[in-house]
Amino acid sequence: MSTVYASLGMSLDGFVAGPNARPGNPLGDGGLRIHEWVEDVETWRERQSLAGGTGGDPDDAIVAENFERAGAYVMGRRMFAEGELGWPDPPPFRAPVLVLTHTPREPWVRQGGTTFHFVTEGPEAALALAREAAGEKDVQVSGGAETVREFLAAGLLDELEIHLAPVVLGSGTRLFDGVSPDLRLEPVRVIGSPKVTHVRYRVR
Amino acid sequence: MSTVYASLGMSLDGFVAGPNARPGNPLGDGGLRIHEWVEDVETWRERQSLAGGTGGDPDDAIVAENFERAGAYVMGRRMFAEGELGWPDPPPFRAPVLVLTHTPREPWVRQGGTTFHFVTEGPEAALALAREAAGEKDVQVSGGAETVREFLAAGLLDELEIHLAPVVLGSGTRLFDGVSPDLRLEPVRVIGSPKVTHVRYRVR
Repeated sequence: MSTVYASLGMSLDGFVAGPNARPGNPLGDGGLRIHEWVEDVETWRERQSLAGGTGGDPDDAIVAENFERAGAYVMGRRMFAEGELGWPDPPPFRAPVLVLTHTPREPWVRQGGTTFHFVTEGPEAALALAREAAGEKDVQVSGGAETVREFLAAGLLDELEIHLAPVVLGSGTRLFDGVSPDLRLEPVRVIGSPKVTHVRYRVR
Repeated sequence: MSTVYASLGMSLDGFVAGPNARPGNPLGDGGLRIHEWVEDVETWRERQSLAGGTGGDPDDAIVAENFERAGAYVMGRRMFAEGELGWPDPPPFRAPVLVLTHTPREPWVRQGGTTFHFVTEGPEAALALAREAAGEKDVQVSGGAETVREFLAAGLLDELEIHLAPVVLGSGTRLFDGVSPDLRLEPVRVIGSPKVTHVRYRVR
């Protein structure tokens, strides 16, 4: 059965976006710093149709693993709306993407294996479709933070991987805002680089 | 020259204490969960004059290293006031402890090599005395959070080691509250266990 996992960048002080996050500034002021580590990662760049970058190091391996294990993606409508304009063709997913939304829409088939499906029946319905699409592979809950929290609260997430950036934002969107202190996480893997610390948690 | 380091437990959402921290409840509600990982560590227990525990694993090695490298300690007056009543005899430090305070007081010599010295001239003066006392060893800035932030802001800290607990507190005392986003940290070592993730940062 597919593992359902989320994989998120977070600042050392717990933020996934800086202050003033809004359409057009989805990561908020300074929020790009959370993802600085990935900018030079070869596998990431290749998926964005960008040349160059560094491969073969732990950061590259983490990104490659994340793409390889994902047989389908689930994302919130705001993340989709922000990405819709920015993702290159082909988009980086190369797999079915289930978008949580309130507005029905026909599937949007794009190059390279990415098809966006729009699901109006909520997270559990989206996850069922994602599991079906993923087959033997895993399902990634891509974000944003609110969608990840929704999956956590509903007990639908098996794993949470945090890419802990060595930056302090001070304010913004807190990943765990409103998450119950009853959440039980167990660190099952940690991989470090000079740019970021990747910690994988099993959700118990 | 001594390395000046801090070594602090923090929740995954960035708190070093839970809500309602006050004298008599210094870690706040639920704050003990941040330090759950250390409760069974043999070296820690031995320093608290407690028998038993587990040795020889990464968590034990981290605690042992922390005690071994410290030739002197600096702490804030509130941490001292809370600890004063609770530390066993001999206290766990077994080295000079420089206490930042506004109230002059004669040195307090305790068993096992721990002497508390009370410094009224501020962090830099305390650090100079700690360096002198530490000799070839390092200086640990023990806390609390406010004292660590004071040392960070003054550029007096070389290293920050976070023991990242897999717990969510939701509210309380944030380690990086008010710390400038200009702080530059570089992860230089990461060691994981099923209970906690130890990340050491160089302060640049």
